Order: sequence, then C-alpha cells, then structure tokens
Amino acid sequence: MSFSVNHYFDNKVTSIAFESAQGPCTSGVMSPGEYTFGTTQHELMKVVEGELVVKLPNSDEWTSYPAGTEFEVEANVSFDVKVSVATAYLCFYS
Amino acid sequence: MSFSVNHYFDNKVTSIAFESAQGPCTSGVMSPGEYTFGTTQHELMKVVEGELVVKLPNSDEWTSYPAGTEFEVEANVSFDVKVSVATAYLCFYS
Repeated sequence: MSFSVNHYFDNKVTSIAFESAQGPCTSGVMSPGEYTFGTTQHELMKVVEGELVVKLPNSDEWTSYPAGTEFEVEANVSFDVKVSVATAYLCFYS
Repeated sequence: MSFSVNHYFDNKVTSIAFESAQGPCTSGVMSPGEYTFGTTQHELMKVVEGELVVKLPNSDEWTSYPAGTEFEVEANVSFDVKVSVATAYLCFYS
C-alpha cells in the first residue's frame, strides 16, 4: 500500500490519504492562513497539534479547537478555518 | 510556507515536515509492515491513530503504543516498528 498526497491552497495545506481502522481518513498539516473547505462527506476533524479556529456552517461564531479536540461537519457544506500556527489534523470521512 | 513530503520504505511510510510550536515535527502515516528507523536527533513519537508495536534500542521487548500514547528515542540509534493497521503519528525532533 502506498499513499496519495494532496496539496491545497497553493501548498499551504497538505494531506496524506489512508484507510484507517475507522474508514477513510486523511492526515494533514495546515500552514498559518485562512481557508474555506467544502465537504462532500461527513467529516470528523481531530486536531492533533496546534489549533484551528473554526466557523461552522450556519454559525457566525468562531470557536477554538486546540490539539486534543475535535469537531464534526456535515456533507455538502463549507466551513471556514483560521490557522495561526502550523497545525496537524486527522479527518475521518463517513 | 509549503511543506516537504518524504517517502520511505518503498512509499509504505509517508510524512509531511512542518515547524510546530514545539519545534521541528513530521506528521506521517505508516502502512502495515515492519520497519527499522534510524534517528539523528532525539525523537518524541506520538501515535495519533492506529497502533505501533515498538522494540526500542537496547530492548528485547516489543511494546504496544496505541493511539493517544507516545514514546521517546535517543539520537543516533535505531528502533524497530511493527504496524498491523495503517497508523498516523507525529514525530517531534529535539
């Protein structure tokens, strides 16, 4: 098995796709910046290093998710993320 | 900032290098297999998904490190890892 590596946002976000015991997953790193991600599946995002500040769909509030925390996003929506320090995450798709 | 991606062991191990708030770090994924890694710096390995079964330097014992656990390895040694399910890790160098 080898892994596919994807680059987004002019290489400011990079991720490695793999099949975890819980299903399809990506392990990625985000550079400092602001990003809008679109979902095609339900996503469980676990922050494993650093911090994501997130505005979820249908919310006007920004919420901090530091390392060790997680949040979920429905399929077929978009959400906004602010990153101030390089941050590693796991994203589980279902 | 963009990231460098490295591939090891015939692409069975892939990692993304970044500068974390704690210093140089790699976020990687290992396929099932057995690997021997050599260190050039002190490494703090955090397992974030899956499981690593590890034989540390100067040890004859294999120890399980599931997601949420970590281990340290000195510089300039080698250690052995067995992986039975795709496993994501963070490695901090110091």
